[in-house]
Amino acid sequence: MDKIEHIGIAVNNLEEANATYKKLLGTSPYKQEEVESEGVTTSFFKTGESKIELLAATREDSPIAKFLEKKGEGIHHIAFAVSDIERKIKELEADGFVVLNKTPKKGADNKLVAFLHPKSSHGVLIELCQEIKK
Amino acid sequence: MDKIEHIGIAVNNLEEANATYKKLLGTSPYKQEEVESEGVTTSFFKTGESKIELLAATREDSPIAKFLEKKGEGIHHIAFAVSDIERKIKELEADGFVVLNKTPKKGADNKLVAFLHPKSSHGVLIELCQEIKK
Repeated sequence: MDKIEHIGIAVNNLEEANATYKKLLGTSPYKQEEVESEGVTTSFFKTGESKIELLAATREDSPIAKFLEKKGEGIHHIAFAVSDIERKIKELEADGFVVLNKTPKKGADNKLVAFLHPKSSHGVLIELCQEIKK
Repeated sequence: MDKIEHIGIAVNNLEEANATYKKLLGTSPYKQEEVESEGVTTSFFKTGESKIELLAATREDSPIAKFLEKKGEGIHHIAFAVSDIERKIKELEADGFVVLNKTPKKGADNKLVAFLHPKSSHGVLIELCQEIKK
């Protein structure tokens, strides 16, 4: 893994959470983006070489809506930057990690992403993400 | 906040979790340290400019033991590096954040630390940390 790309935080109301994290981090979100396929709307804040991603649900059956219903607001996942996501998926599977997306999918912020199941990483939902070359 | 200093992950067994995160991050922990006052034993892995801190309880009444009992293994807190922790505590209190340690305390990895209550940061336990000058 090259670095922490971002930390994803599930929130009930994106506007309220944007105001809180703007005060906390001392910077405004540099991007707000809806990912229709995931039923989520997101905003991103820069902090050092990493980002904080706030995630709010746009429909009741989205994974974030289910997380919020079950656990309430809080940290949802850690994303690590990788340079070759397909190779990393194969390596981690060989090492016994449970990869949820064997073929990477398009995520927010111009990334190819794949998730690892928390059961193979001590309760932590891990995202791998690779920048899509333009 | 200057950057993500580390992400703290609560685990049941530090040796098992060290083995998992060594495979995941492709690096060994650079430090293992017990913080007697917190009833916790920790290990640290470098990833980019940040760290992953694994935390296991050393006694049943420690905050990490209670977290594990209530929520199970998973992400426990996000720590941000700050250059002047006392000033940052005052600023965040003025902005409405609930600061749990108005006087910073000695944490792991040669840091002065203070925590913000999750209720003022959308369910996220936030740690501020400042490197102690030697």
